[in-house]
Amino acid sequence: MRLSPEQLAEFDQQGYLFLPSCFSETEIAALREEAEGIYATDRKEVWREKSGAPRTAFAAHTYNEAFAILGRHPRLVGPVMQLFGEPVYMHQYKINAKAAFDGDVWQWHQDYGTWARDDGMPEPRAMNIAVFLDEVMAVNGPLMFIPRSHRHGTLAAGHDLATTSYPLWTLDRETITRLVDEGGIVAPTGPAGSVLMFHGNLVHASPPNITPYPRKIVYLTLNAVSNHITRFKREEWIAHRDFTPITPVEDGALAAFAARRMKTAA
Amino acid sequence: MRLSPEQLAEFDQQGYLFLPSCFSETEIAALREEAEGIYATDRKEVWREKSGAPRTAFAAHTYNEAFAILGRHPRLVGPVMQLFGEPVYMHQYKINAKAAFDGDVWQWHQDYGTWARDDGMPEPRAMNIAVFLDEVMAVNGPLMFIPRSHRHGTLAAGHDLATTSYPLWTLDRETITRLVDEGGIVAPTGPAGSVLMFHGNLVHASPPNITPYPRKIVYLTLNAVSNHITRFKREEWIAHRDFTPITPVEDGALAAFAARRMKTAA
Repeated sequence: MRLSPEQLAEFDQQGYLFLPSCFSETEIAALREEAEGIYATDRKEVWREKSGAPRTAFAAHTYNEAFAILGRHPRLVGPVMQLFGEPVYMHQYKINAKAAFDGDVWQWHQDYGTWARDDGMPEPRAMNIAVFLDEVMAVNGPLMFIPRSHRHGTLAAGHDLATTSYPLWTLDRETITRLVDEGGIVAPTGPAGSVLMFHGNLVHASPPNITPYPRKIVYLTLNAVSNHITRFKREEWIAHRDFTPITPVEDGALAAFAARRMKTAA
Repeated sequence: MRLSPEQLAEFDQQGYLFLPSCFSETEIAALREEAEGIYATDRKEVWREKSGAPRTAFAAHTYNEAFAILGRHPRLVGPVMQLFGEPVYMHQYKINAKAAFDGDVWQWHQDYGTWARDDGMPEPRAMNIAVFLDEVMAVNGPLMFIPRSHRHGTLAAGHDLATTSYPLWTLDRETITRLVDEGGIVAPTGPAGSVLMFHGNLVHASPPNITPYPRKIVYLTLNAVSNHITRFKREEWIAHRDFTPITPVEDGALAAFAARRMKTAA
């Protein structure tokens, strides 16, 4: 998959691109069920909310076939290679649960702030890709962006160790207010299978989910190989140290996996 | 103001009515500024979040001229008298802040559950009216309703004293999931001056507000005089004991107040 000149211009200006229904319901159903299986396991890569509900599962592409295929999918890897003009590797991979009733806040932050401070990533030349595993609605804790905030570079942040179970470099209220005055807030909603690509410096957050609707999203962080990290403070299953360029799979690989999976289950 | 037969049927079926832009920006600006003044005072009727930000101010119609006028406004009192077919009095009056960044959750609940259990209100013949003082957006902690849930009567509830600074009779997750399976969730959004009327048994909640946008809403609870409360457990400024029927003011009374206020300020 390649982005059009209009899409490239929009990404440059707004800091994100929304691609509704990029994956079929069959492809996504397989991932959704595999994700539930992963959350049910007791492994170190699965972080939980203070309530015990799953919050995020790291590195599923290293231990789950379906997520391994997604991590090499040409609909995701292709546009990022196009944008950066070079091969990419997987810097981080997580499946955020935002569980029904229990899903907690992700405070306002820039991802590149963490990649720079904790991982020594030289430049914000890594792309976040969100793949919706459930329908994302206005009410079930959607991702909120401040459009154009990526144009402000990497902003001062404080390390919040208290608000949730997961430490995060977060931005202060004065900064958020100033950026929102300029860019507003958008919260793209859409069916499972939709994809959001956003710049490492785009300021984002998501509110708690108080509804019975789960809101699982897979996040791939694809980094330009020449921009690999230089500091190894975080666990290797959180900030990967394997900089091998990703070779995309065939476009039909995930659909084929889903078909095999259904046949096995039948 | 009178409701049309279609509006009465919709209220009966869905449990709520949304009336966008019922008040003008001039009328609402006066209320919004008066509300900020009330939140800035240190009086017992003003409850605060655990963070210290304002959460709700009770009984402002008893100590503030602007909110006294709103509490007798024919656009609010008229439809409720029409619906109940008798005079009404003010059972409760609050200005909920849902402050920027700090506004905390209101858990899933039915208001009549509290009025029945705590106040001995005989029947769910009291109407909630929400008047938006700020724009209510999808992102700044909108009121969420489960349409048609009022048809299930008064549901079992537990008294939640821990989640927020304010005790509330809340519904369990199984009940919410069942009701949402049937009715879904709506979160009406609209400009300041919009009005929502909803049944005392309609299940509702609102999520925290993590944005820089404040989301103040005034809630009037108008009770049929013949349905007055019989138990006086809560403070009289929370559950009023004055059952005198409300005599509506003129339709232009709030606009006239706003004009006088502007002249005084000039």
